[in-house]
Amino acid sequence: MSLVVVGTVAFDSIETPFGKVDKISGGAATYISLAASYFTKPVNIVSVIGDDWPEEDLKRFHDHGIDTAGLQIKKGEKSFYWSGKYHMDMNTRDTLATELNVLAEFDPILPDSYKTPEFVMLGNLTPQVQQKVIDQLKEKPKLILMDTMNFWIEQDKDALLETIKRIDVLTINDEEARLLTDEYSLVKAAKKILTMGPEYLIIKKGEHGALLFHENNVFFAPALPLEDVFDPTGAGDTFAGGFIGYLAKQKDISFDNMKRAVIYGSAMASFCVEKFGPEKLYNLTDTEIQTRIRQFVNLVQFDIELEEV
Amino acid sequence: MSLVVVGTVAFDSIETPFGKVDKISGGAATYISLAASYFTKPVNIVSVIGDDWPEEDLKRFHDHGIDTAGLQIKKGEKSFYWSGKYHMDMNTRDTLATELNVLAEFDPILPDSYKTPEFVMLGNLTPQVQQKVIDQLKEKPKLILMDTMNFWIEQDKDALLETIKRIDVLTINDEEARLLTDEYSLVKAAKKILTMGPEYLIIKKGEHGALLFHENNVFFAPALPLEDVFDPTGAGDTFAGGFIGYLAKQKDISFDNMKRAVIYGSAMASFCVEKFGPEKLYNLTDTEIQTRIRQFVNLVQFDIELEEV
Repeated sequence: MSLVVVGTVAFDSIETPFGKVDKISGGAATYISLAASYFTKPVNIVSVIGDDWPEEDLKRFHDHGIDTAGLQIKKGEKSFYWSGKYHMDMNTRDTLATELNVLAEFDPILPDSYKTPEFVMLGNLTPQVQQKVIDQLKEKPKLILMDTMNFWIEQDKDALLETIKRIDVLTINDEEARLLTDEYSLVKAAKKILTMGPEYLIIKKGEHGALLFHENNVFFAPALPLEDVFDPTGAGDTFAGGFIGYLAKQKDISFDNMKRAVIYGSAMASFCVEKFGPEKLYNLTDTEIQTRIRQFVNLVQFDIELEEV
Repeated sequence: MSLVVVGTVAFDSIETPFGKVDKISGGAATYISLAASYFTKPVNIVSVIGDDWPEEDLKRFHDHGIDTAGLQIKKGEKSFYWSGKYHMDMNTRDTLATELNVLAEFDPILPDSYKTPEFVMLGNLTPQVQQKVIDQLKEKPKLILMDTMNFWIEQDKDALLETIKRIDVLTINDEEARLLTDEYSLVKAAKKILTMGPEYLIIKKGEHGALLFHENNVFFAPALPLEDVFDPTGAGDTFAGGFIGYLAKQKDISFDNMKRAVIYGSAMASFCVEKFGPEKLYNLTDTEIQTRIRQFVNLVQFDIELEEV
């Protein structure tokens, strides 16, 4: 079993300047797993839902090679629900409602078949739940990638730092990196975070791209300039899913391959934002993905003859 | 004569979270000319100052191969003065004072030796002054690059659009692109601007890099992630100076060479922000510039085998 993904599977209601959708399927693990499924199968999902979750969406997971043996279905309970509204700049949003429901008591249980993964993606959840997943692994995986959010930095920093110690790659956004380190400069923030445990750090800057840090190296990938961003929900998770899915496919965690993984993650995220929710992630073709990768190459490639210095 | 630069030469008082300087030399033409001087000489400056301008700073221009035959010195008058304060994010600033002084009546007069340039940089000034410079050219230059600002878009849009029609490359920041076109999406804004006259457009995004648009092509260069940005004043002008200076050196205005010029512009801007005012631009070595170009290459280069699609 090569990839385990832990995170929320949820209903989202989303409003952006381009429209509005009510109670569509979402959640970090949904975006991560769908994005990763284009590169590696099975994707073993660990999460919890209520029995209000549509059969049809479970079937869509299965069609994508997403194994749901670790997806708990709580009878008579409701799935996690989030509702939010984006402002014109799409970088800021207001949370209108958060109903934890089944998530309140979530105890992640890994089926035996999930306990020796090569790659693990810890989507944003309480640091305790993330740790419980690590605790159940029988061997150290090749790579553990972890996401978190400002809420845990502010509310449960000690537990968060304990979790961060045990992972290989942390992925957070620019504001979270600043919050976690009390450094405004992202370069300084990155240096601090790389002393906290992870050997690699990805700082996501939304429409402004992503930075990958490792030792003294830094790599930058832009976001693809798009005519319209309809809905940024899940873009960061989709990025993470594309990133770790690509690594799991290649089984290569060198810095050079991580750069490629960042580009693949960015390409997947660029699809995600073009429609509401994860809609666009259900029916991509390899040709579409390759075409987009080529757009990234054209976007940043240049040819300079360096003088010896 | 290969490069003519028009723009302000001014005194600036600047406060940033890292410190404060009072009445140092600045102005768009100062930054542009100094940056360009590392690639092409002479740089023929067209501007106006009062007799309060320090002899020493004029000497520094001459040391950099900046020709001041077109720099009017008004006896008994004071130079343009600007004072501003940056916020923590360094992307926003408050203007504390603007004293036009000699700039109020500025009538740009090109010496004969300036009238057949191959490259012209119109720094941010009134659209009328920018047009007067174009009017005095005896032949169509290889390339006219123009900067402007939100003030002219809001206060004198008709004259601005007239000027924009006559140039080849427009360089503005993201907010100005939105203001000029009423489009939030930078891709849509770029499409509109490319119908207004210029064949090329550079949208500057400050610490988030710069986009170069031409026909259906787009190229992106990040800003170099720095530990500290001490003072962003003049970064955009320095970018433009490095950009046009590099083009003037190469005498090649192909899209591929413009990509390289964007990288050189970004490298020069990355030096500019490391000290207050244009200080860092006085004493750079070719080795420092080449080292920084190499950092840009390392920052964005990746190697992906594209599948044929």
